[in-house]
Amino acid sequence: MKVWLLDNGSIVIEHTQLMWNVPGPQVRIPVYSVLVEHDEGLFLFDTGIDLDHMNRVLPFELPEQTPEQTIPAQLEACGFALGDVTTVVNSHLHIDHVGGNQLFKGTSARHVLHAKELAQARNHEPFEFFGYSDKSWDYEGADLVPVTGDFELAPRLSLFETPGHTVGHYSLLVGEKLLFAFDVTYTPAALEKEIQAGFHNDPVAGVRSIRRVKAVAAEHGADIFFSHDMEAWQTYKHAPDFYEL
Amino acid sequence: MKVWLLDNGSIVIEHTQLMWNVPGPQVRIPVYSVLVEHDEGLFLFDTGIDLDHMNRVLPFELPEQTPEQTIPAQLEACGFALGDVTTVVNSHLHIDHVGGNQLFKGTSARHVLHAKELAQARNHEPFEFFGYSDKSWDYEGADLVPVTGDFELAPRLSLFETPGHTVGHYSLLVGEKLLFAFDVTYTPAALEKEIQAGFHNDPVAGVRSIRRVKAVAAEHGADIFFSHDMEAWQTYKHAPDFYEL
Repeated sequence: MKVWLLDNGSIVIEHTQLMWNVPGPQVRIPVYSVLVEHDEGLFLFDTGIDLDHMNRVLPFELPEQTPEQTIPAQLEACGFALGDVTTVVNSHLHIDHVGGNQLFKGTSARHVLHAKELAQARNHEPFEFFGYSDKSWDYEGADLVPVTGDFELAPRLSLFETPGHTVGHYSLLVGEKLLFAFDVTYTPAALEKEIQAGFHNDPVAGVRSIRRVKAVAAEHGADIFFSHDMEAWQTYKHAPDFYEL
Repeated sequence: MKVWLLDNGSIVIEHTQLMWNVPGPQVRIPVYSVLVEHDEGLFLFDTGIDLDHMNRVLPFELPEQTPEQTIPAQLEACGFALGDVTTVVNSHLHIDHVGGNQLFKGTSARHVLHAKELAQARNHEPFEFFGYSDKSWDYEGADLVPVTGDFELAPRLSLFETPGHTVGHYSLLVGEKLLFAFDVTYTPAALEKEIQAGFHNDPVAGVRSIRRVKAVAAEHGADIFFSHDMEAWQTYKHAPDFYEL
């Protein structure tokens, strides 16, 4: 099994959004996707930002994405095309995790996501407006596959429920070795201190999910990857470099 | 029925705490209590900050409270002493609403509060640490009277449940004319836009409570008083001046 981290650019958020209620300077955070080549298919987890949407609806987040940081360019760097992807999985449906979903229109890719997330994104709370503002994932003909509970996509490729940040948030365990927490917490310091992002739906559930990520990592001796920490991101292998399990 | 607003000083918070996830400059907010002289007793709603606690545990909130802004001094300005208060009611148990509770040790005042709030403050989430850090209200011998549901303290003096900011948050309707929303939202603009404070336990419930405050105000034609808006505060009558109903 090969695992690539696909660079999708970056955005800027408030420090109180990186770490709920903790003041500090604004921070530029990375946005990335995870590609897994598995015997049972080519899986893409999250699809980054759509630069046009970001510039139109959230220009204050100062989005940056070069042509090389788009999903097609990143896939190509790994030797693949859009049509090779069999399954797109969204950890959740926030703007910085769904931007490239629409690129799979016309392909045979199925889109796996949590059933609660699907319902919530289509009928969200007022405070979730910006987070769910990019609806391009809900394109006509999209092969949406809503699932619930902890879910094995394929052997050694498992989603586990970590709600709080959003109602239907999934984290990912690959080969029982790489744990992608996605947006349970944004940084190692936040995980350590159990401080979730300022963006959330249910902070009480969020605390439980932080503890679940720690427990799953400890149980398997897995390394935790953080979704939005620039310093941690610099230490990861970036596509076309890859992890092999 | 006479109603006095007792000035208890001020603190400084982040703009994203005043209005969740909305950036802006830090803001100094007022802290105040509400005193109601009723045929059935003298009721004090909330008790402001304890300056020593704030300076010791939350000095970053730059607390200000002159000797004239303490509960005893404010009561005296209205012609009362601590021993005259029959009932202290806490909208919730955050630091800026309980600081003066301990002053009633040795008096016959009972302390009315939501049962869920009592349980939560004694066993809170990690993200509620600072909010519930002042435990001086839980003094030995405190006559705590936990209640649940919408609750009529006396004729024309009613608490109604508005959870979200905290699990057991109450708002207050006096004479069906004055509606003290307390921390459902901090400012008129926040109420209008349905943006709760950055401090909260359940933001989904918080949205429902914002709408409940609007509905109750509309039903009774009541004026809404905001807990933490300096501009609105300047337009209110301050003790010893009072509202008569």
